[in-house]
Amino acid sequence: MAAAQEAHNREAFRQAVVNTLERRLFYIPSFKIYRGVAGLYDYGPPGCAVKSNVLAFWRQHFVLEENMLEVDCPCVTPEIVLKASGHVDKFTDLMVKDEKTGTCYRADHLLKDYCKDKLERDPNLSAERTVEMSHVLAVLDDLSAEELGAKIKEYGITAPDTKNSLSDPYPFNLMFQTSIGPSGLSPGYMRPETAQGIFVNFKDLYYYNGNKLPFAAAQIGQAFRNEISPRQGLLRVREFTLAEIEHFVDPENKSHPKFSEVAKLEFLMFPREDQVSGQQARRIPIGQAVSQGIVNNETLGYFIGRVYLFLTQLGIDKDRLRFRQHLANEMAHYAADCWDAEIESSYGWIECVGIADRSAYDLRAHTDKSGVALVAQEKFLEPKEVEKLVIAPVKKELGLAFKGNQRMVVEALEGMGEKEAMEMKAMLEEKGQAEFHVCTLDKVVTIMKNMLSISKEKKKEHQRVFTPSVIEPSFGIGRIIYCLYEHSFYTRPGRDGEEQLNVFRFPPLIAPIKCTVFPLVQNEQYEEVAKSIARSLTAVGISYKIDITGTSIGKRYARTDELGVPFAITVDSTSSVTVRERDSKQQIRVNVDEVASVVKGVIDGASTWSDVLWKYPTHSS
Amino acid sequence: MAAAQEAHNREAFRQAVVNTLERRLFYIPSFKIYRGVAGLYDYGPPGCAVKSNVLAFWRQHFVLEENMLEVDCPCVTPEIVLKASGHVDKFTDLMVKDEKTGTCYRADHLLKDYCKDKLERDPNLSAERTVEMSHVLAVLDDLSAEELGAKIKEYGITAPDTKNSLSDPYPFNLMFQTSIGPSGLSPGYMRPETAQGIFVNFKDLYYYNGNKLPFAAAQIGQAFRNEISPRQGLLRVREFTLAEIEHFVDPENKSHPKFSEVAKLEFLMFPREDQVSGQQARRIPIGQAVSQGIVNNETLGYFIGRVYLFLTQLGIDKDRLRFRQHLANEMAHYAADCWDAEIESSYGWIECVGIADRSAYDLRAHTDKSGVALVAQEKFLEPKEVEKLVIAPVKKELGLAFKGNQRMVVEALEGMGEKEAMEMKAMLEEKGQAEFHVCTLDKVVTIMKNMLSISKEKKKEHQRVFTPSVIEPSFGIGRIIYCLYEHSFYTRPGRDGEEQLNVFRFPPLIAPIKCTVFPLVQNEQYEEVAKSIARSLTAVGISYKIDITGTSIGKRYARTDELGVPFAITVDSTSSVTVRERDSKQQIRVNVDEVASVVKGVIDGASTWSDVLWKYPTHSS
Repeated sequence: MAAAQEAHNREAFRQAVVNTLERRLFYIPSFKIYRGVAGLYDYGPPGCAVKSNVLAFWRQHFVLEENMLEVDCPCVTPEIVLKASGHVDKFTDLMVKDEKTGTCYRADHLLKDYCKDKLERDPNLSAERTVEMSHVLAVLDDLSAEELGAKIKEYGITAPDTKNSLSDPYPFNLMFQTSIGPSGLSPGYMRPETAQGIFVNFKDLYYYNGNKLPFAAAQIGQAFRNEISPRQGLLRVREFTLAEIEHFVDPENKSHPKFSEVAKLEFLMFPREDQVSGQQARRIPIGQAVSQGIVNNETLGYFIGRVYLFLTQLGIDKDRLRFRQHLANEMAHYAADCWDAEIESSYGWIECVGIADRSAYDLRAHTDKSGVALVAQEKFLEPKEVEKLVIAPVKKELGLAFKGNQRMVVEALEGMGEKEAMEMKAMLEEKGQAEFHVCTLDKVVTIMKNMLSISKEKKKEHQRVFTPSVIEPSFGIGRIIYCLYEHSFYTRPGRDGEEQLNVFRFPPLIAPIKCTVFPLVQNEQYEEVAKSIARSLTAVGISYKIDITGTSIGKRYARTDELGVPFAITVDSTSSVTVRERDSKQQIRVNVDEVASVVKGVIDGASTWSDVLWKYPTHSS
Repeated sequence: MAAAQEAHNREAFRQAVVNTLERRLFYIPSFKIYRGVAGLYDYGPPGCAVKSNVLAFWRQHFVLEENMLEVDCPCVTPEIVLKASGHVDKFTDLMVKDEKTGTCYRADHLLKDYCKDKLERDPNLSAERTVEMSHVLAVLDDLSAEELGAKIKEYGITAPDTKNSLSDPYPFNLMFQTSIGPSGLSPGYMRPETAQGIFVNFKDLYYYNGNKLPFAAAQIGQAFRNEISPRQGLLRVREFTLAEIEHFVDPENKSHPKFSEVAKLEFLMFPREDQVSGQQARRIPIGQAVSQGIVNNETLGYFIGRVYLFLTQLGIDKDRLRFRQHLANEMAHYAADCWDAEIESSYGWIECVGIADRSAYDLRAHTDKSGVALVAQEKFLEPKEVEKLVIAPVKKELGLAFKGNQRMVVEALEGMGEKEAMEMKAMLEEKGQAEFHVCTLDKVVTIMKNMLSISKEKKKEHQRVFTPSVIEPSFGIGRIIYCLYEHSFYTRPGRDGEEQLNVFRFPPLIAPIKCTVFPLVQNEQYEEVAKSIARSLTAVGISYKIDITGTSIGKRYARTDELGVPFAITVDSTSSVTVRERDSKQQIRVNVDEVASVVKGVIDGASTWSDVLWKYPTHSS
């Protein structure tokens, strides 16, 4: 079966990547000597350097080039903030427990595994069941606790390890909980995203920006998610680095002044309609996607374009990167539109960046909860005459009619929208009374003409006060880095039937070390030359590593290819040296006093490797 | 009173700094719209830029220049790791509770405040009590729970807010506790320091370094401390960024190859003896401090020198920086020597960097707890003949004599050092028996000659296996930044009796923005010039901010002086512009197409401001 072979190849490829990563300490399972903790990983030296390069480039590409306001807020967050944001109530996964051992499982994982296994391995599965189980997989994310529980019962799914029966599914909050201060009376959580720290500071940041919109705030930091049972290695972890942008914009004007700079970019997009109708992702210029209304607005489109540039400049393969629009059922109820940058890896298409128009949801939620108005003003050049709806309940009459319910009725009347109010006005004038549904009482009451007056009055206004919309690009840095590892990894045959050699083809921007310096043989002269080259590299700001071990030069090349070091300088004379490029393995001869600037030129992109190949003699090794 | 006036001045100065910092969003009390959480602060845009500059320079100065292995470990840490390190049992402060309201206080704070208040304000305090209370203040950190409780009772100290009586002091663990995974069975903590993440990885890092000592690992990250009642603003917080180095070294050779590079540095040191004998800190060359044995070893001395360079290059005033050696009672029991870099601020001398020789304590603790040997090997060039002490208890005899206590006696005998063992051997041979103190039984037993044999045997050894010592420089980044703010802040009179102007004299390395660009008046031509200068600044990698508001140029200068921006470029013609230096307020005229490289030159330190003052015409404003 081709599919099985493909799955096997993917698995083998992943193992090769992961083995190299672990052996060379790109990452280390955290607390390994204590047998580790699922879902926690350390970045070892080369991984840490890659991460810090990715973050430096992120800061350059987004914060500096777009003049964003970067902030840095704590991870420990008091409950009230996450109550307002909805995380205390809704940031949950459905869990089932082994009824005897108490071991916990994610309910949807068990159902998914069961259906997948049946579909792939059970030759006797009826056509009806096949259709049903495929449907279950398609709607898995939408199933309620009751529906999940019913399916688990129906299929007789038991605990994977013990075959014991399982509890009904119930929600488990994914935030790490803690307590702030010694009293035990101030619950807190480790933040599940960095965004809330920005929202609660909106007022100060808006002021800092001269009370002008649009502007963006940004934050890089740790976020936490107490997964029920982490899977997928480095992709699904309990602590991770997020880089988030909150771009605040007038909801009536989501144009972007720099949109023209990205409009012609063309890349794989996967709009909602194409997914529903079973088509493939296709290349669409982002300008066209916005003008055709596929992408909701220019600002969202601008960030999609910028994210594309960011990821491909890091070294993500543009043919394995797509922007997928959320389906209606995936999208948070407040979101106007949402696109995920998905990168194809051996685990399938992985969501690495989410780019959402969160509308005014978060700022409104914090305004309500804190009582501090998180709003913007647009000052009119000259006062505008506007018609304003005035709803004036006659409290005496309402009191007589509704007694203890009076307050609820008054609030409901005052809360009517313009259309509803004008319909009621017409009804009252025509019939003298109107039926009115009061949500908070959950019943319909009868309103008489003498109970309220509804009118429109002309007023002069000097400004418009509104809650800004938020466009949020949110980057899962660890996921991006893992996908980058897979996209950068390849093997090539060793010499004389030796084992395969592993290479990471990192661009210089990302490579953990830019250059190595190898004295060909161990002698004092060559080591002196190596040290003087090292000094010139430091002077031009190129990170390097000297390897003075007597190991064969081939082995030393192989070692640094595994770390993705783009250039190696071999000191094989005291006047000139060999420079080797990692992927082509081409070698040139350069004078000792020139070599640092030649390497710097190629690393900074001032010249290409082809340029220097023309300019310098190639080496005959 | 001069002391009172000085205290008042310090307080006024601090208020001026803090007001400026808060108004310009260098920092923001976290979750301010919810009335904040004590001990949690956000870095706003300029503070965040300063922090990221400090961290970038730290990475350059330590990690890159010293070829350290940087790692990045999670904050969430399982209990076993912090049990091994001693934090679960010992990372506590003594707390008392208001017996009616339950409000918690740090016991030592209450006692300290009480004594200070009495000493400063009670004119009737007896001479005897004055001496006693001064003594209490001096030994405050050494008092046990019982001693603290007794003093609180004796002085009749009550809860500050309610005057209710207080509970006895009891230890409160300062780690934020949480639970890993859904079962509730895996307790975890938010790490109180980043160091443990490095120690548990020692084996992998040693291998990564080619199984060679010495080497250093480094980590930058968040750490957490659930303070009972945070005070001192930005200096005592519940979440903070640490930058830590663990330098692993052979305990028998703590020399440092680069020590000569720092040996001549001379700065304020405050050795233990000078503190005890009531002297002042004095300037000592670090080379001399090591050779005279004031500082324990070269590696410790090397790092003290590097820390001095780091802090003064950031902009810390060298006359308000001292290295204070821990007194015997301050030092952790395992430390061989410990020096704090203390910076003087309006709060007094503040510990900002701790540089400790932690000996082999941590690696041994994790070896014991995990069963994984965290050791290094020194391979001998040729096998060495060594005399080895062999202690062979005769278990049968010991069992007869000590029964249930046999195991404890055997372990104690096997644990004898060479000197102790040889003394016992002599005693047994001479007298036939010897007294022996068994710590674990806390009693002295009598050992007979037939109960063990002690001998020395000659063996050939090919290597020496040992637990490395650790030298740990640990940087409180937030504290360093706060002290830097105080050392950089000054005021100067405004024009025409306007209010005082605030300035931060940040070095360019640290300044949140390097340069501002101001079109003198609002017109299209000048704005075009400003944009073209902006493009050249981007091209040479200088961060800038354009201010095109019509505000007066004086006000715009004042605004950016408050942010510590070193240079302002005012566009006052289309061919040449004015460059103004922040502190001298001197101005020069430079051609538009030259200005970016001139500013870059001064910022990078390729030229000084005096150089350019000579070269370019000064501006007559």
